[in-house]
Amino acid sequence: MATRTWTKYPYFEEETSADVVIARMGTDIDPRLRQVMTAAITHLHAFVKEVRPNHKEWLAAIQFLTRTGHMSTDWRQEYILLSDTLGVTMLVDAINNSHGDGATENTILGPFYVENPPHYPNGTNICLDGKGEPLVVRGRVLDTDGNPIAGATIDAWQTNEDGFYDVQQKGVQPEMNLRGIFTTDADGRYWFRTVKPRFYPIPDDGPVGQLLAAMGRGPNRAAHIHFKVKAPGLEEVITHVFPPDCPYLETDAVFGVKETLIGDFRHVDDAAEAARLGFTNPYWALDWDFTLARAK
Amino acid sequence: MATRTWTKYPYFEEETSADVVIARMGTDIDPRLRQVMTAAITHLHAFVKEVRPNHKEWLAAIQFLTRTGHMSTDWRQEYILLSDTLGVTMLVDAINNSHGDGATENTILGPFYVENPPHYPNGTNICLDGKGEPLVVRGRVLDTDGNPIAGATIDAWQTNEDGFYDVQQKGVQPEMNLRGIFTTDADGRYWFRTVKPRFYPIPDDGPVGQLLAAMGRGPNRAAHIHFKVKAPGLEEVITHVFPPDCPYLETDAVFGVKETLIGDFRHVDDAAEAARLGFTNPYWALDWDFTLARAK
Repeated sequence: MATRTWTKYPYFEEETSADVVIARMGTDIDPRLRQVMTAAITHLHAFVKEVRPNHKEWLAAIQFLTRTGHMSTDWRQEYILLSDTLGVTMLVDAINNSHGDGATENTILGPFYVENPPHYPNGTNICLDGKGEPLVVRGRVLDTDGNPIAGATIDAWQTNEDGFYDVQQKGVQPEMNLRGIFTTDADGRYWFRTVKPRFYPIPDDGPVGQLLAAMGRGPNRAAHIHFKVKAPGLEEVITHVFPPDCPYLETDAVFGVKETLIGDFRHVDDAAEAARLGFTNPYWALDWDFTLARAK
Repeated sequence: MATRTWTKYPYFEEETSADVVIARMGTDIDPRLRQVMTAAITHLHAFVKEVRPNHKEWLAAIQFLTRTGHMSTDWRQEYILLSDTLGVTMLVDAINNSHGDGATENTILGPFYVENPPHYPNGTNICLDGKGEPLVVRGRVLDTDGNPIAGATIDAWQTNEDGFYDVQQKGVQPEMNLRGIFTTDADGRYWFRTVKPRFYPIPDDGPVGQLLAAMGRGPNRAAHIHFKVKAPGLEEVITHVFPPDCPYLETDAVFGVKETLIGDFRHVDDAAEAARLGFTNPYWALDWDFTLARAK
């Protein structure tokens, strides 16, 4: 062994391994990248020291990450699925949205939002193929002081009764089926007609689906209607409302359910009201208000 | 909001996010997977809470992981490179090898090992194309009590003077250039002739190379000769020996250098000895002993 009296960078040692790697970063690099990589390297090394993988396990991890990349294409993003199913997408969402101020809680946008959906007058039925159990959604948009907000827009989208979005069934569902934007009236009120949404599985034929199965978890998302609600001077909220009778509320594959977002979907038996709504009887009704925080 | 009095699984909350995800694992799953995923989820959520990424940063991370997968093929493993350059491969290696018992320290195997290299008598020159600065390597294999071990095998492989392994330059270098297995004599001695190895860059035209550059780090591995040494009843060691004059010792891209693995490569000016070795004068000489631990 040759004796070296001084080294600028320390050599690898198991005990100090994360420090050795972190110390290698240059002095003249992006400070945010340094912060992120310092935290990433620290947690990665702590994780490895905690689980002490053998070579076979380490290689299995490498192969899982590789397969997850290979599964990703322009129309299938397996790494986003991984982030979703490990609760990371919800966490990033929570970090980037205000809460605790009485505003409606947010949840994830998901991959099925379509830009420029149709604008409709209140009361329009966004179910374009007449399939599914009819549902009327009615409510107000308020600010956190309880003032009704006129001119707020409510952008809604959801699955059909088979658990598919229009974009997943091109040629089967009409284009822009179960999507539309509504605007609140002078009293802050909106309403529209649709059908009851259904739960659906995330794509589970890839490595993430295999990991979920190995963890004893299922691929289903709880049934929901997506909403994107905004008004000038107020903070936009991107959220869902969930029917309380969905069997997957507590096991939503992407952790999208929040207790405050479970709506009181009522099964209504009222032939006269059904007729007025153009619905078969009985039908479903949801009263749902959105509360928006003052924009920062 | 519908009131729910009981839930089997808790809903997502920012504060308890990792616990919510961990609680979802089934009861009847592989206990090792549970242990690994519990640690992975815990560290992943702690990392996200520490760096608080915005959506753009989160998407950049998703895209980096996806590109790293896409870059991986049968002959290029970008995730192993990522593991190597973040010091994880060395850490897994350290965890799985005994040390501190006086045995020669291990370092990583690397991707260029070839099964079934030629067995040679001691003294053979493994440099098959006559290029490079000549080097003679001489030493012994010992146990940790200092006893010489007869019949130990020393499997050596290395780059040529341009920094390439034979398998990287098929058709340019002779097959099995700079590879060979030697066996110790009755006194535990081995020797062979070769050329001085040269530093070389890891493949840096992919996402890992881009990350290294952004971190202010270079792609070069310090020059080294690989060794795999074994003998019956003793623990195999997979290691490198590094020349002390390599400019990349302290910045080896994969953290493979350990202080005890830097060899005393001497530049020898001795025309008679050079002639006896069939070398041009001056030449390089390395005396290097391997110490193997008792097998467990």
